[in-house]
Amino acid sequence: MNFRYLIRQVGMLSLVVAIAMLVPLAYSALQARQGVPLETEALTALGIGTGAAILVGLILILAGRRGDIESMGRREALLLVAISWIGGSALAAVPFYTFGLIAPDTLPDSSEPYTAGTQFHSLANCYFEAVSGLTTTGATILSDIQGLPRGLLLWRSLTHWLGGVGIVVLFVAVLPMLGIGGKKLFQIESAGPQQQGVRPRISETARVLWIIYCTLTLANIISLKLAGLDWFNAVCHTFGTVATGGFSPLNASVGHYRSPLVDWITIGFMVLGAVNFGLYYRLVNRQFASVWKDTELRVFLAILIGATLLIMIALGGSTLFATTGDEQPVDFVGAATPAAFQATSLMTTTGFATYDFNRWPFFTDAILLGLMLLGGCAGSTTGGLKIIRIIVAAKVVWNEIERVFRPNVVRTLRVNGSPIDEPMRLAVVGYVLLLLTLFAFGSVAIIVLQAGGQEIDFVSAATASLACLFNVGPGLHSVGPMENFDFFTPAAKLLLSLWMILGRLEVFAVIVLFHPRFWTND
Amino acid sequence: MNFRYLIRQVGMLSLVVAIAMLVPLAYSALQARQGVPLETEALTALGIGTGAAILVGLILILAGRRGDIESMGRREALLLVAISWIGGSALAAVPFYTFGLIAPDTLPDSSEPYTAGTQFHSLANCYFEAVSGLTTTGATILSDIQGLPRGLLLWRSLTHWLGGVGIVVLFVAVLPMLGIGGKKLFQIESAGPQQQGVRPRISETARVLWIIYCTLTLANIISLKLAGLDWFNAVCHTFGTVATGGFSPLNASVGHYRSPLVDWITIGFMVLGAVNFGLYYRLVNRQFASVWKDTELRVFLAILIGATLLIMIALGGSTLFATTGDEQPVDFVGAATPAAFQATSLMTTTGFATYDFNRWPFFTDAILLGLMLLGGCAGSTTGGLKIIRIIVAAKVVWNEIERVFRPNVVRTLRVNGSPIDEPMRLAVVGYVLLLLTLFAFGSVAIIVLQAGGQEIDFVSAATASLACLFNVGPGLHSVGPMENFDFFTPAAKLLLSLWMILGRLEVFAVIVLFHPRFWTND
Repeated sequence: MNFRYLIRQVGMLSLVVAIAMLVPLAYSALQARQGVPLETEALTALGIGTGAAILVGLILILAGRRGDIESMGRREALLLVAISWIGGSALAAVPFYTFGLIAPDTLPDSSEPYTAGTQFHSLANCYFEAVSGLTTTGATILSDIQGLPRGLLLWRSLTHWLGGVGIVVLFVAVLPMLGIGGKKLFQIESAGPQQQGVRPRISETARVLWIIYCTLTLANIISLKLAGLDWFNAVCHTFGTVATGGFSPLNASVGHYRSPLVDWITIGFMVLGAVNFGLYYRLVNRQFASVWKDTELRVFLAILIGATLLIMIALGGSTLFATTGDEQPVDFVGAATPAAFQATSLMTTTGFATYDFNRWPFFTDAILLGLMLLGGCAGSTTGGLKIIRIIVAAKVVWNEIERVFRPNVVRTLRVNGSPIDEPMRLAVVGYVLLLLTLFAFGSVAIIVLQAGGQEIDFVSAATASLACLFNVGPGLHSVGPMENFDFFTPAAKLLLSLWMILGRLEVFAVIVLFHPRFWTND
Repeated sequence: MNFRYLIRQVGMLSLVVAIAMLVPLAYSALQARQGVPLETEALTALGIGTGAAILVGLILILAGRRGDIESMGRREALLLVAISWIGGSALAAVPFYTFGLIAPDTLPDSSEPYTAGTQFHSLANCYFEAVSGLTTTGATILSDIQGLPRGLLLWRSLTHWLGGVGIVVLFVAVLPMLGIGGKKLFQIESAGPQQQGVRPRISETARVLWIIYCTLTLANIISLKLAGLDWFNAVCHTFGTVATGGFSPLNASVGHYRSPLVDWITIGFMVLGAVNFGLYYRLVNRQFASVWKDTELRVFLAILIGATLLIMIALGGSTLFATTGDEQPVDFVGAATPAAFQATSLMTTTGFATYDFNRWPFFTDAILLGLMLLGGCAGSTTGGLKIIRIIVAAKVVWNEIERVFRPNVVRTLRVNGSPIDEPMRLAVVGYVLLLLTLFAFGSVAIIVLQAGGQEIDFVSAATASLACLFNVGPGLHSVGPMENFDFFTPAAKLLLSLWMILGRLEVFAVIVLFHPRFWTND
């Protein structure tokens, strides 16, 4: 292992975090100057956070200054990715913890405890919130989100956006080059000139993806502003949307606005964030036919529309409860916006809510859970199993069924016209099994780790495991859209944090660290 | 398709059912002569059942008399297996339905409705109970089992035993010869002289298995008799045990006796019924070392013992509720028998109960659900995924993890020293995925089919799907060990019946019928 170069890279990443923190820092300074309550504390917290990130960054860069990029192998790259996410989250959590230390326990004009401050007294809470942000999960421990000063809310939403960039670059540019597992599937064949070797191709691809991501972000902000949101909320919601994260600066999430226009803008950009970013690259290159014929895109949209229709049927004629607390009776057609919003929000693993789907019929819950499992397209910011894997796994199973009565038939399994050979099939199916196993293991582990804390039922534990591993955010029952993750014990929160990181890195990049042969040379 | 020969085979099977029915018929006649209440009705019901089976058998044999065994191919064999289970269950249900027709709605000395009679007014109930028996699932629709006359109780338990024979012969002798899917894995290499070709080998293997099964049955009956049971209960419980079925003629199941001796005898024979029957063949051939070193057996026992210890830890210091209604406080050591019994009963997919595990802590529920998923060894009468598949799937996933950081490493995957090639790995992993998908689909379908009937919660629907697909019997909540399946709508019961048959035939033998290419020649 070449640790020096690795250390320098982590140092560089810390500086990136510090630079990113300057944005909410500046905003917070502005708010503090206008005398907004608690913004001075937020400014201090963000200042200390920035300082800490710079300090860590400089120390690591110095320590690793004699590192050599040429000796950077596959294992070093994997370790770098894992450390970046685990360590980066710790840095991102510093402003939260600092704020918890300096914020008052009760506000001057209130006798209630100031939960947005006291909840950050716990290190586990701060780390959970930071991991949830960077992994674009969107699960929160805050019971009163709006109680947090705006500077910190902006930082919280910005972690989504940063995580989103990281994921896109990681999945579309970096991992396929490493040829990780079934990731070859997701390679963009047209990305960059092939003959230039690996490194220039990565940076070229990354540059294009960066432009696409920024374009989506700008378009989303402007759309929300035109729909009537103020700049602050437009920006924060956009960060939660294009990164398919789910953090909202409002207690009632997107449901706060009770506006179908805002809902549909958000639906549109969640879908855009859930599509393989390689397709945008092709659009830029005017390969419209190949985008239109993309199997994964078609299956993704078909499932999303089908699920929406089923939910509309189930909800028609009932009374829905908005996240604002309002009751609203709906018929089949009136259920279209709530159904489409919730199906999109959960399938893209964003996690925004407009209605309390926890109070919807079991049948819709089951559909929503299914959508959470599936996730969006590969090479996007979504979590879940990803549609392309579902397609491959379904074809494998269908093939096996035929082989029962025709054992000698050999059929080439194709996706988008490319044959999928047996090692790749095994990689995909093995990945699906591994994720399902982790999901099941997590459900049980949470019950165990929660011993001594508030009691938790089966469905809550299972959906908490699912919502974190698949980077969705909310689950059902005690972790439903109107609840939060504060009641978990610190041990359970750390497990859920690990689950979010595992899910974000598609498991393998972290789980390899537990394989003994990763650390040896045999 | 060569339907004629197929029809004749189904006719032969009907005659086997008729012959089997003579046993409870004779017993019922004896009881009726002694003036036991309701036995005359049971005698009539069994008589009509026997007559119907003979009639159907003769008609089919006549209709298929010109069939030719030589034209019996793989597809015909699969169709035969599916029809045998689906049609055989219908014949086995005739005595139940007839009894429902002629039994009184209330007993002379009672004002309560006579549920054991009225519950058989429903065709869906009768079919469900028969399928549950033949597939050795053990889920029941009866709320007062002991209300049924003994003749019918004996028939109900005998269906388990018949199903057990069928399964053993099917899995250990027939399917491996057909080379179905991953079944090659389970082949007994030492079974019969290899050079004699396929057919004599099947019948030789089947004969040996038959002897082993009868030996186990006799040993179990005698053990229970020596432990103090009467002959009737010893026989009925044995049928439920060696076939890993779970039907008991007593409302409180095995817990009725409150006897650790009976519990441990049952534990022992459940384990013996859950072991690959090919191992007994090897024992007879004095290949002790190969049995002792069998990986599947070792993993099976290790998981069973480990799970028992975990449950003992979780139960120690709490109060348990016996199926008889008694309360019993236990410490760690005192929890040994209840924990070992329930772990064995559910892992071997038998389904007997001594305590209401539905009232145990969530943690033990989770372990028990895990054991239900795993099941026993291949080539046994158990359901579930089977340990050998878990071993292969785990090795596949472990291999994939290593391939992330060492993509060019090729390692031979071995089980019991035999290499598992990629097509076989795909077959195993594909099977696991298919079963998990059916399990999930069933959970949702039950919620939908239950619309209009008694409301059902998530956990009940999911564990009903699991308990039927994996041939366990009881689940949790509304389908817990103290409950029954009567409250389901007829549509849900038919789905659960299909699930039991699918699970019994390891899915493929039935699901191929839904593959369009099964019926064509391309």
